Amino acid sequence: MVENYKQNTNNLHIKKHMVDVAENRVPADLVLKNATYLNVFSSELSYGDIAVANGFIVGIGKYTGNEEYDMTGKIVLPGFIDSHIHLESSLVAPKELAKALISHGTTTLVTDPHEIANVMGTDGIKYMLEATEGLPVDVHFMLPSCVPATPLDESGAELDYKAIDDFYNHPRVCGLAEFMDFVSVVSGENGAIEKLVSAEQHNKMIDGHAPMLKDKDLNAYISAGVCSDHECYDINDALTKLRLGQYIMIREGTAAQNLEALLPLLTPMYADRCMFCVDDRHPNDILNKGDIDYICKKAIKLGANPLITAKVATYNAARYFNLKHCGAIAPNYIADFAIIDSFDNFNVQMVFKNGKLCYDGEVKPFETPIIEPNLVQHAHNTFNVSNVSAKDFKDIKHNIIGMVPGEILTKNQGYAEKVDIEKDILKIAVIERHKHTNHIGSGYLQGYGLKTGAVATSISHDSHNIIVVGTNARDMAFAVNRIIEKHGGIVVVNNEQIVSEVVLEIAGIMTDAPIEEISENLEQTKAAAFKQGVNKGIDPFMTLSFMALPVIPELRMTTKGIFDVLKQTYIE
Amino acid sequence: MVENYKQNTNNLHIKKHMVDVAENRVPADLVLKNATYLNVFSSELSYGDIAVANGFIVGIGKYTGNEEYDMTGKIVLPGFIDSHIHLESSLVAPKELAKALISHGTTTLVTDPHEIANVMGTDGIKYMLEATEGLPVDVHFMLPSCVPATPLDESGAELDYKAIDDFYNHPRVCGLAEFMDFVSVVSGENGAIEKLVSAEQHNKMIDGHAPMLKDKDLNAYISAGVCSDHECYDINDALTKLRLGQYIMIREGTAAQNLEALLPLLTPMYADRCMFCVDDRHPNDILNKGDIDYICKKAIKLGANPLITAKVATYNAARYFNLKHCGAIAPNYIADFAIIDSFDNFNVQMVFKNGKLCYDGEVKPFETPIIEPNLVQHAHNTFNVSNVSAKDFKDIKHNIIGMVPGEILTKNQGYAEKVDIEKDILKIAVIERHKHTNHIGSGYLQGYGLKTGAVATSISHDSHNIIVVGTNARDMAFAVNRIIEKHGGIVVVNNEQIVSEVVLEIAGIMTDAPIEEISENLEQTKAAAFKQGVNKGIDPFMTLSFMALPVIPELRMTTKGIFDVLKQTYIE
Repeated sequence: MVENYKQNTNNLHIKKHMVDVAENRVPADLVLKNATYLNVFSSELSYGDIAVANGFIVGIGKYTGNEEYDMTGKIVLPGFIDSHIHLESSLVAPKELAKALISHGTTTLVTDPHEIANVMGTDGIKYMLEATEGLPVDVHFMLPSCVPATPLDESGAELDYKAIDDFYNHPRVCGLAEFMDFVSVVSGENGAIEKLVSAEQHNKMIDGHAPMLKDKDLNAYISAGVCSDHECYDINDALTKLRLGQYIMIREGTAAQNLEALLPLLTPMYADRCMFCVDDRHPNDILNKGDIDYICKKAIKLGANPLITAKVATYNAARYFNLKHCGAIAPNYIADFAIIDSFDNFNVQMVFKNGKLCYDGEVKPFETPIIEPNLVQHAHNTFNVSNVSAKDFKDIKHNIIGMVPGEILTKNQGYAEKVDIEKDILKIAVIERHKHTNHIGSGYLQGYGLKTGAVATSISHDSHNIIVVGTNARDMAFAVNRIIEKHGGIVVVNNEQIVSEVVLEIAGIMTDAPIEEISENLEQTKAAAFKQGVNKGIDPFMTLSFMALPVIPELRMTTKGIFDVLKQTYIE
Repeated sequence: MVENYKQNTNNLHIKKHMVDVAENRVPADLVLKNATYLNVFSSELSYGDIAVANGFIVGIGKYTGNEEYDMTGKIVLPGFIDSHIHLESSLVAPKELAKALISHGTTTLVTDPHEIANVMGTDGIKYMLEATEGLPVDVHFMLPSCVPATPLDESGAELDYKAIDDFYNHPRVCGLAEFMDFVSVVSGENGAIEKLVSAEQHNKMIDGHAPMLKDKDLNAYISAGVCSDHECYDINDALTKLRLGQYIMIREGTAAQNLEALLPLLTPMYADRCMFCVDDRHPNDILNKGDIDYICKKAIKLGANPLITAKVATYNAARYFNLKHCGAIAPNYIADFAIIDSFDNFNVQMVFKNGKLCYDGEVKPFETPIIEPNLVQHAHNTFNVSNVSAKDFKDIKHNIIGMVPGEILTKNQGYAEKVDIEKDILKIAVIERHKHTNHIGSGYLQGYGLKTGAVATSISHDSHNIIVVGTNARDMAFAVNRIIEKHGGIVVVNNEQIVSEVVLEIAGIMTDAPIEEISENLEQTKAAAFKQGVNKGIDPFMTLSFMALPVIPELRMTTKGIFDVLKQTYIE
């Protein structure tokens, strides 16, 4: 209570200054002069000087300020909001990603630290909260709902509803993240329902993840509390969910791209229930294409109304997540602006965050968040696993997991007893690396294309154990041991030599290295994989990382052996 | 924390039942069969069986239930939401008002207990919270922001931001009520700004009240945190506020009726930022015309789109007040339904609250809320004032307050030394009744029309002291003493006899009597006032009740004498 009153006194001074600036009794901290801006309330372009004080917009009209920028000929938009992104998918630390995002006009994002939580548990959530504190992009959180992702997963932690409960009180936590395990929800399993009712008790939002769920199952899933979906790749699926009250996050990421299919949503009847997200986006995509600005540009090119598109990119997500002062250009809203040249070109020219210029062709320096040493220590030591040897990957009879071109589905292709490069039958294995269980699951993989050496990665959804594929046992062991040695990464090996690698020393899934460096590094390593024969049509590492995901039919490689998703049994 | 987990366990059972019903594993508690219903998400009419469990909608499709109603030929709407109402203006206890409102389809309302708080302070807020607990209308609260309304008022309490702070934690408190004292806000006075920042700290909404405020003042007022306005009687005023981010509550009450002027707001560009309210509504208006249903009917008659109108009447207010499970027909929303015959007629035929039938031509019985005895005791004993005598109203020289037909404005009409019935110059007085100050302010009133006797009322905005007007001192004293004797009311007196009266024993402004009785009683008493000469063009009591409001020009009658609002001084 005393804290409240102190806070009140502090806020009192800020608010009085805001009122004084609005009343023109003192000059503004910043004025965007002659601004043509998106008015999200009346869905039109409005015009005026935009005055800013204490990081908030305080007036629109005729103002003077200590800092002024002429907006003539430009369009001022609220800063963009990415409604669903796994920061880990960028492979870089949040401070690095922030640099890239701010230059594309994203000033707010909502992340689900699902990947790092599956490695580090609540420490992973804490790490990401601290790693995003005070960045020039406001990072809000949805708490990971599925750690482990399924009962089959050997992840680094298990989080029930009690484990994450305290995080709801964090001012940047908006709710519970995508509830992937919809089967548990609709069948009413305690563990799942407990998490949902807990989020509702905290009056928070719950994100969904339920591709093609419908009829009674969809009613049950929504009744259970799930408010949104970002897995719609079909307009009818999206409309069914929207009509039943779910918000639709239109996703345009590196792997999944749904904008074109969902374009009819960007119309007056439906747009208010929609927002944009990237879900997973690789570093080179962010650098070369962008984030929400890229989605807007593409939507407008496809024929969407620019005002509607820009509102979906800003205001709507703020309303969904109840970010009260975010997503609009009006008094008492945070002074976050993405300034573009025109709706036709949609090039971000300047970006302001909390009323400070952050980007005008180059990103302005900002302070790096300080992370508690014990969390940093934990993040850099997540490999509790002994070195492996060639005999861990010896030739024995196993099923063959058959890759399907252009899909992450797989097929059961019968059995093999050894590698057969002619037939593109490779050895694949997943090595449990969190809890020293010595669990190694092995099998064969067809369709990957590797002709020599081995490829390994510690990014393997959702538990991020080490997954390795190779033409021979020695290179496989070498690759796995290299990843253990570096505490995480992606490596291409040939003849027990490192051909190319990306070190991912943070939880085995991210790095502190600059995003430009890691992007280049990743492309080089991909090239190395292709050079060793990996099929050109697939992403050598992303495809591999999904081979351990035990929810997608037909066969998956787990730490306990090959799992038949359709039959829900391990097979040998 | 332990409480949380217990609550979780309890909610777990409810949620599992909801999921089971949605999945058709068990029958629903209630099904509205073959329902054509308003889909607020896609702004269209949708169709299906609506299944209800535990008071929540859980599925739309094909369902069977323990209780079923065929909706063929009807239109099912979410229950209506009145976004701003002073319950006290109905003159009856909330349980009585609830009966009337539920029969008109209102299932949720947001009230500002401004009147009772000005009499009883925080006890008044507590009284209203308890008096509305568990009613078949969900009653949410905005905390009174202006107690007293102005520094000139001698009210029953003074509430600063600390006094109301704890109430923000009440689950039915949505924010801070209409901040009438906009002058203090835009001039940055501590007392006002403290209240606003406190509401923002609690992440709550702040309602506004600022007729015709514009330009820098409006920027300042909105920057200070005020989110809405219900005082727009002009479309340009409304559009200015809407474009600057305020929500517009379209008001259609007993005194102020703004719907017709604001009809252009009920269009796709603006409607999402609008809701409906009645502000103040007298019992006979509620009984004879209705509440939000009446506004909808009128809007549609005036040409508004029915789907937009119905959405403004339901969904929009729920979003503004962040009532997460309210205002829509979809899974996980509260099963509140107003069922009408057609958009053309807009007659409410059936009403369900929390999935229970409350009205089908008659209101179903419900439990009366239990109010703590000490609060009841306080509410019935708010008159701390000695009896008056004729000599308290003796003839001396005072200014004349001149009433203006059809307005609540007044004019300074010079001086008088005594009553002059020919010239329609009557004696007027306000008697402080909260704190035994013996303050009596006297003056003359022109334009009221009374020819004999006296009229007195303990409803006088905003402090609810006793206001009396009369042709002679003896009748004035008799009328005032009668009000003191009955602990509140409205009385018409002639020759020291009661001609007609309305007893308002709760805080001097409400009664426990049935609404039908009080409505009839009030009409009789009005008739008595007219019979004694009060001008037909005015409401004898409402008009009187505004004569003590020291914020409206030109002259006002206060407990300390006549106040010149334009000059901001007391005059003699």
